[in-house]
Amino acid sequence: MSASLAISLDAMGGDNAPDMVVRGAEIARQRFPDVHFLLFGDEARLQPLLRELPELAKVSTIRHTDIVVAMDDKPSQALRAGRGSSMRLAIDAVQDGEAAAVVSAGNTGALMAMAKFVLKTMPGIDRPAIASFFPTMRSESVMLDLGANVQCDANNLVQFAVMGNVFARAVLGVQQPSMGILNVGAEELKGHDAVKVAASMLRDVPLPGRFVGFVEGDDIAKGTVDVVVTDGFTGNIALKTIEGTVKLYGHWLKQTFSMSIWSKLAYLFARPALNGLRAQVDPRRYNGAILMGLNGICVKSHGGTDSFGFANAIGVAVNMVQNDAMERMRQDLAQLMAVPGGEAMAAAL
Amino acid sequence: MSASLAISLDAMGGDNAPDMVVRGAEIARQRFPDVHFLLFGDEARLQPLLRELPELAKVSTIRHTDIVVAMDDKPSQALRAGRGSSMRLAIDAVQDGEAAAVVSAGNTGALMAMAKFVLKTMPGIDRPAIASFFPTMRSESVMLDLGANVQCDANNLVQFAVMGNVFARAVLGVQQPSMGILNVGAEELKGHDAVKVAASMLRDVPLPGRFVGFVEGDDIAKGTVDVVVTDGFTGNIALKTIEGTVKLYGHWLKQTFSMSIWSKLAYLFARPALNGLRAQVDPRRYNGAILMGLNGICVKSHGGTDSFGFANAIGVAVNMVQNDAMERMRQDLAQLMAVPGGEAMAAAL
Repeated sequence: MSASLAISLDAMGGDNAPDMVVRGAEIARQRFPDVHFLLFGDEARLQPLLRELPELAKVSTIRHTDIVVAMDDKPSQALRAGRGSSMRLAIDAVQDGEAAAVVSAGNTGALMAMAKFVLKTMPGIDRPAIASFFPTMRSESVMLDLGANVQCDANNLVQFAVMGNVFARAVLGVQQPSMGILNVGAEELKGHDAVKVAASMLRDVPLPGRFVGFVEGDDIAKGTVDVVVTDGFTGNIALKTIEGTVKLYGHWLKQTFSMSIWSKLAYLFARPALNGLRAQVDPRRYNGAILMGLNGICVKSHGGTDSFGFANAIGVAVNMVQNDAMERMRQDLAQLMAVPGGEAMAAAL
Repeated sequence: MSASLAISLDAMGGDNAPDMVVRGAEIARQRFPDVHFLLFGDEARLQPLLRELPELAKVSTIRHTDIVVAMDDKPSQALRAGRGSSMRLAIDAVQDGEAAAVVSAGNTGALMAMAKFVLKTMPGIDRPAIASFFPTMRSESVMLDLGANVQCDANNLVQFAVMGNVFARAVLGVQQPSMGILNVGAEELKGHDAVKVAASMLRDVPLPGRFVGFVEGDDIAKGTVDVVVTDGFTGNIALKTIEGTVKLYGHWLKQTFSMSIWSKLAYLFARPALNGLRAQVDPRRYNGAILMGLNGICVKSHGGTDSFGFANAIGVAVNMVQNDAMERMRQDLAQLMAVPGGEAMAAAL
């Protein structure tokens, strides 16, 4: 066990757990040979899976529990009754310093509630946010909040910008991220109070990178900015709107190539190229949302993903750890408080 | 002049006006031979255009004005200074009963402000909304509000459902439209107060069709409901997110077929099929948003569209007129007030 970095996994979370989780860990192991896995879940089910994957077994430790948070448990219910659950114990491992990050494909609301309760929000952060990255015309961008907070004030949005900035640097490798607030127009007068006040605050905040002001819905896919800041209501709807539109386009594309004998023939020629496209729009590539703003790294995988997708969520966690995301965030928040005029901002934060 | 239906056109509104408007009217004339056009704008520029299109000239009347609302005029400025503008006179024609509907590709904010001032909102409607239709996996759906009201309460959302219902019946031809409120989850507990209260109100409202509850971002493209109800902030961002995603997918598709000699060859075979797809995703097909809730039909065309897109916006206006949209809306609002329990609702409306 020469592993220098431990990741705790909620082995029972997700539609196809624990198989999908264990096989995902195996894929991640090949990419990150230095990682050690703490697998929280039913030993009787995990042991046979690890027996088939001897290399993974060498870098894994099973921590048994019978208790599982169900996908439809209410967050409050999960908090009360899920104290010994695989999800909770995996989070505890981060709090105890045993693991550098936790990954779960389980119930989002329960994960957010438990992670907040155990890890606590960072000083200077009022509310954690869910952040994820996605492909754009230019490269990749991060958007947050994706649903943790349906109503947000200007301070929340400013804090999301700080978190998104750190995400862009740690996960996307952008040294000077550009940031924008999602709005119904680019002009300063547009939108409601929260976005207007947040924009005027962000113009004065000394973050790495630059704040470009407001961006619109079509700027998300254009990749106009590296960090798209928005409230959890709008962000969740925008993200799912993208997913739905990509599926619709794929559906049309399929129809296009099955309309006539001629188009079916064309498909045979186009297939290799189209397979490349299919890989590019594959949502599993962008799996792994981070619960930002906590004293610890907590990654949420899509519940319905497979092992390939889950391995990517583990990859997001590893990137966050290896790029010192937590320390960068502490520095950014400290910097906010240190600069002239930043004190009022920090107080607001 | 045997025309039974007059449409007034703001001939000077839009990036390529007046050429685009006049040529758009020519395309619309071929589809709707019974329509008469009132063209408001600069006679010196319109006359030569009509001279080239003798058939259109026969069913058109030019109403001269030098005044034009600029694309960047503030709505308040347009209201004050634009009294004799092509946009304003075209709206006045509806108010005076000369035209059954007005179509403009000009400044959206100015159009909304002027149309509201001249036509007034219908009894029972607090705030007009912008509604437009778009393609889905199933067929076509309408979404509103798309940006007229950045903040909405539950009553506004209920009224938008009434308007969207009428749109679905009049423009999309759906006799019993299904309706849903856009939210971050389908469960009743999700979302902020406005959507929760609106949902509980809509469960009791006797509209034609049925209210299915909450829908999510991916339901827009799926076509889960005929009418997607949302506030103007979220709706605007969702609509532009769709536009951006469709462009991104098209960009990837292009890249896919230009990566290698083999994929370029495949493109030659696939081209006819792909041209069909291009026509299907063409935003000009879905051009023509309606300013719903006014005592008159007012259609906003995209400012950057061409004559084909503008003709479609005229088509939306003609559909609204021919399907008695105004009368249907009056009936729906009256029905709300007539049923037991509907009185409180009507008062709230």
